Amino acid sequence: MPREVRIRVICSSLCHSDITFRNLQDFPAIFPRILGHEATGVVESVGKDVTEVTKGDVVIPVILPECGECIDCKSTKSNRCTIFPFKVSPWMPRDGTSRFTDKNGEIIYHFLFISSFSEYTVVDIANIIKIDPEIPPDRACLLGCGVSTGVGAAWRTAGVEPGSTVAIFGLGSIGLAVAEGARLCGATRIIGVDIYPEKFEIGKKFGVTDFVHAGECGGKPVSQFIIEMTGGGADYCFECVGTASVVLEAYASCRKGWGKTIVIGVDKPGARINLSSHEVLHDGKSLMGSLFGGLKPKSHVPILLKRYVDKELQLDEFVTHEVEFKDINKAFDLLSTGKCLRCVIWMDK
Amino acid sequence: MPREVRIRVICSSLCHSDITFRNLQDFPAIFPRILGHEATGVVESVGKDVTEVTKGDVVIPVILPECGECIDCKSTKSNRCTIFPFKVSPWMPRDGTSRFTDKNGEIIYHFLFISSFSEYTVVDIANIIKIDPEIPPDRACLLGCGVSTGVGAAWRTAGVEPGSTVAIFGLGSIGLAVAEGARLCGATRIIGVDIYPEKFEIGKKFGVTDFVHAGECGGKPVSQFIIEMTGGGADYCFECVGTASVVLEAYASCRKGWGKTIVIGVDKPGARINLSSHEVLHDGKSLMGSLFGGLKPKSHVPILLKRYVDKELQLDEFVTHEVEFKDINKAFDLLSTGKCLRCVIWMDK
Repeated sequence: MPREVRIRVICSSLCHSDITFRNLQDFPAIFPRILGHEATGVVESVGKDVTEVTKGDVVIPVILPECGECIDCKSTKSNRCTIFPFKVSPWMPRDGTSRFTDKNGEIIYHFLFISSFSEYTVVDIANIIKIDPEIPPDRACLLGCGVSTGVGAAWRTAGVEPGSTVAIFGLGSIGLAVAEGARLCGATRIIGVDIYPEKFEIGKKFGVTDFVHAGECGGKPVSQFIIEMTGGGADYCFECVGTASVVLEAYASCRKGWGKTIVIGVDKPGARINLSSHEVLHDGKSLMGSLFGGLKPKSHVPILLKRYVDKELQLDEFVTHEVEFKDINKAFDLLSTGKCLRCVIWMDK
Repeated sequence: MPREVRIRVICSSLCHSDITFRNLQDFPAIFPRILGHEATGVVESVGKDVTEVTKGDVVIPVILPECGECIDCKSTKSNRCTIFPFKVSPWMPRDGTSRFTDKNGEIIYHFLFISSFSEYTVVDIANIIKIDPEIPPDRACLLGCGVSTGVGAAWRTAGVEPGSTVAIFGLGSIGLAVAEGARLCGATRIIGVDIYPEKFEIGKKFGVTDFVHAGECGGKPVSQFIIEMTGGGADYCFECVGTASVVLEAYASCRKGWGKTIVIGVDKPGARINLSSHEVLHDGKSLMGSLFGGLKPKSHVPILLKRYVDKELQLDEFVTHEVEFKDINKAFDLLSTGKCLRCVIWMDK
């Protein structure tokens, strides 16, 4: 179809959203569906009006579309394409149909416009980034969703400055990617907050300098603990858990006068963030969300890839496991039980 | 006392906070108290360690202290002095005592560190700005609180850019000052939202280009109306009413992707702003408060005064009434009933 790209998938990494949507029973879950959305692939064929890539190009699909033509895509301030807004759709973005059927001709649904747990997939050109084929595919794929989201949140959404103090609530892959982004931006103090102290050891690889055990702050709220250890609060707080009460704790932990709190974690539908009006007015803090790290996919993801090639951005450290496609369920088990950061699933190994 | 300045008050303008604290029965109201906090005066004498002003200097007190020495005052990012935080205190900021007594020697309380409804007052040097004596005192006084708050919110807190679209909820003096600030920053569309359509006529003087009658949007929420008329929402929304539900409407009215909502209005103690977690994450908007317009008093208020002298910043238009001190209750009546923007009260006329 016009503006669509057929891709042979080389490998995918497993992200928590894949697990969430495998386990979810109700809408927006829908079955049968092909999951998978952090992938590297090779272009097999292209539809009409596709000029950006051609057969044989190595590409990564990204979860956030960029049409390049709407007011948001043309703006330097927004990464939310107006024409194809980000959503967990079961369809292709442009015509709202599927490209997959089973052997009986019944529809199989898409996931996040990508569906990479498949030998072949079809992705709109708005979600495709051409990459240098020299970049290892099991590293490039990480930038399709999670790592870009975390690194971008520090770099683009927050604009972390050299010398800053950063607090990260939740040291999963996204939180660690925030740490990596903050480290790249020159933050001098990166405080990881989690209920599992063993995550501090992993966090150190990504620049985490201090650890706060959320369950053991001597009876104090985490925020008070952070305010005391930083002499007033962190310059930037990142919520990577997806719980409104943690957002409030992050907001309380950031410095009066200029602290920014960035929401990255996905809470339950209908969850509300309940801020004190007086504090919003008086404390000089900001609250903002970060979708795909505030990155404009086609301009910023290539910058991150270059920084990986230049040995500035760490990607290797995120890949803790690699499996063949036939063992994909092992990947789900490893990530579900917190035993890995990213497990890469190879299609043809 | 050290670092204090005794001032002969020339004139004061009446601000809504004076009325609020005259009418309030409970804490933080306290009586007897000398109200008044937007003033121009002449230095009568100075305490030890005061080098910034000397006898005969013309000054305006400002509600927000700036010690000049703490980490916040030294930062370009914050206007919240750590040593003397803004508060509605009944005392002097430095030693927590009063400089006023009645004829029986009983304490009279201070208000906002200024208390200018008095022939003489004592103000800490942290709250004093020396001004050019050529500037009319009944204009300079406006910058002690309200006008600075509104103009600064557009200029410093929001950082309104040329060509921006701005929506202002509540066209009282503060809202009109936001309009004036947005106009100075080059906003091309300034939408006033109020329940009194007659305010549009006043608003036009300050650059308001469009009016939305909050009570008559054809059954639609105000936010939907604004989204439609702007093709997506305003770049910057300012809440100048002091009601959490209006903050939510302002937040809903600002543009996905980059919209900023700035809270200026003072809500009731304990009020909460209840945002959808999903919207915060997905919509790419920011929420922030603005205290004294984000202005650093000693560096930014002189810039505003210069812009008034240069005929860029409008101040004359805010002064709708002037009375002698013996008629101060008329000023309270005029402002209480919405008949004036600023009424200047002269001490020696």
